[in-house]
Amino acid sequence: MTENISILGSTGSIGTQTLDVIRDIGGINVRAMTTNTRIDLFEKQIREFKPELVCVMNNEKAEELKKRIADTDIKVTTGMEGLTEAATIDGADTVVNSVVGNIGLVPTVEAIKAKKNIALANKETLVTSGELVMKLLKENNVKMYPVDSEHSAIFQSLQGNEGNKIDKIYLTASGGPFRTWDDVSKVTVDDALKHPNWNMGKKITIDSATLMNKGLEVIEAKWLFDVDLEQIEVLVHPQSIIHSMVGYEDGAVIAQLGLPNMKVPIQYALTYPKRVHNSFPKINFFEHSDLTFEKPKTDKFPCLGLAYRAIKTGGTMPAVLNGANEIAVARFIDREISFTDIPKLIETAMNAYNVKYNYTLDDVLEADKWAREFTKSLEVK
Amino acid sequence: MTENISILGSTGSIGTQTLDVIRDIGGINVRAMTTNTRIDLFEKQIREFKPELVCVMNNEKAEELKKRIADTDIKVTTGMEGLTEAATIDGADTVVNSVVGNIGLVPTVEAIKAKKNIALANKETLVTSGELVMKLLKENNVKMYPVDSEHSAIFQSLQGNEGNKIDKIYLTASGGPFRTWDDVSKVTVDDALKHPNWNMGKKITIDSATLMNKGLEVIEAKWLFDVDLEQIEVLVHPQSIIHSMVGYEDGAVIAQLGLPNMKVPIQYALTYPKRVHNSFPKINFFEHSDLTFEKPKTDKFPCLGLAYRAIKTGGTMPAVLNGANEIAVARFIDREISFTDIPKLIETAMNAYNVKYNYTLDDVLEADKWAREFTKSLEVK
Repeated sequence: MTENISILGSTGSIGTQTLDVIRDIGGINVRAMTTNTRIDLFEKQIREFKPELVCVMNNEKAEELKKRIADTDIKVTTGMEGLTEAATIDGADTVVNSVVGNIGLVPTVEAIKAKKNIALANKETLVTSGELVMKLLKENNVKMYPVDSEHSAIFQSLQGNEGNKIDKIYLTASGGPFRTWDDVSKVTVDDALKHPNWNMGKKITIDSATLMNKGLEVIEAKWLFDVDLEQIEVLVHPQSIIHSMVGYEDGAVIAQLGLPNMKVPIQYALTYPKRVHNSFPKINFFEHSDLTFEKPKTDKFPCLGLAYRAIKTGGTMPAVLNGANEIAVARFIDREISFTDIPKLIETAMNAYNVKYNYTLDDVLEADKWAREFTKSLEVK
Repeated sequence: MTENISILGSTGSIGTQTLDVIRDIGGINVRAMTTNTRIDLFEKQIREFKPELVCVMNNEKAEELKKRIADTDIKVTTGMEGLTEAATIDGADTVVNSVVGNIGLVPTVEAIKAKKNIALANKETLVTSGELVMKLLKENNVKMYPVDSEHSAIFQSLQGNEGNKIDKIYLTASGGPFRTWDDVSKVTVDDALKHPNWNMGKKITIDSATLMNKGLEVIEAKWLFDVDLEQIEVLVHPQSIIHSMVGYEDGAVIAQLGLPNMKVPIQYALTYPKRVHNSFPKINFFEHSDLTFEKPKTDKFPCLGLAYRAIKTGGTMPAVLNGANEIAVARFIDREISFTDIPKLIETAMNAYNVKYNYTLDDVLEADKWAREFTKSLEVK
């Protein structure tokens, strides 16, 4: 169980829920916190959790916060330098990385080098740089605990099975809101922003609707659990009660179930291997009494296949997939392109890209930059 | 992982499947085997697995077997003495107790005293003498591994959670073949002997139809996992794919799933904590794509409630429940009583009995004997 943590991105969805968990279970000190710009909420969090160091990515907002909390002796930093300082702060044994986007990659690497365990909610870290990050974890002898609901379920289903060979990972997927639509070409932004099971941000909501979210999770699972791509099976499970499963060589399948609630996986990443009491609602199986599985409709949702293709290609291709996807999703939200244009743009970018192997962090950032610029520049009729 | 075992009851359903597992995975020596009377199959098993000692409970059949395997130097024993010798044989580290009925109790106790781990399939051991047996296990510092599908699933769902408090055990039940019948008073023996999911003996098939099987499993779970009765929830799950679940304090529920196949739990009891490859069929979730839960209909199936009442009363009452049930089921199979008479007879016996606390093994055997005689003598109009 961790006792001292640093939270990168404390004002986002995962960040605020992490603080909810800490408030609920007690016994964990927050040594550092960061935000992009939301200093109103941030100030409240700071006054409640009393970290030593905080970082506001936006320089102006950082200056404003400095004035607001001048009555405290909390150090206020800004920019990538401040983010790195928060990620490597002395005394924290675990860094919760809930930064959204590619900016989360560098602090993960710095935190690992500073021998911190990582509670990972930032998707880009493993999607774009899984090979590099897994190597770094091993070299520095620190652990990575998944915060994501599915990967936490897999991680939980692996407990007590050290040395037992995985036969299959069953990665469950809600299937998104358009699972039952015959013609997804008519999907509008407003349709897409209503997601059935989880309370999450716009970008992730669209990724969930295109199944790209699941594709990115397949890539993460491959790195986190060191399995072949063929061993990962996506099961559409619209009720989101079985959070994922692990099948073993002997035919036994272990699963983790519960209400769709991010707080349980967040908590397990902090208290592992212990489980401690909390006041969050628990599942009643008589209210969730029908659990179903379907095959993902890969023809209707090509993003899942693109993710498989990117990780099969390897090297910097997943970074291009991810960067192109971010821009395509942003353009869809801005009503510039249609729902079915999203995979088309990503595929065009992947086709145009020359992949680089044995990559460095700089290569990843460059691939990401290329993909973004290329995808922005693509004209759609 | 166990390397040397003794199998009590090798010609029964669990016994033959245990040998199937050993044949499939290899690496386990069978040091002793026992049967009641089925010496044809037994001889084949003996010639294949080459134990040092065998026991045929029936004396005449034992003499016959002696002649048949006179070409070997295998020792043939008979009766309770022989059964005990098999249960305590030198060199076996695990005793698989798949003896059917109350006769399985004494060899469990003797094996524990001889410091053997127990792979338990005999229901009576924990149902009638759970308190006594659990104490004995602790005193002798040996382990009990459940072979039963549900208890194995719970055991598997507990791995990696040492020290974590159980919130709830979800014991799944097929619900039996009459789950959807409006009027169970019309159930005939022939109706009852067709069970949907598992391949098992007559007695267990009827117990599954009355839900007494689940009641006995509740009692076993209480002892095996040291939980309060209120922490055990029976979930009717007609598909028998989720074999049971454990809910923890943090809200996470861990489950074990798979095809309804006794070999996986048998194997895990032998290879624990390892899982090894076998050639048994594995689940395809697209073929088992709808998993449901229902409340057990305790009004229609009063046996479940009687089991709760027996373990709440404690002492020797569960032995009376079990003994009375065996006779009531036998009388139903013999077409002497109706399906709905089964719980009535058991309840009458429980009402007439004076329970004994701080019991010994002899007290259990006496309670059992009393219950059988009393239930046999009951007249049904």
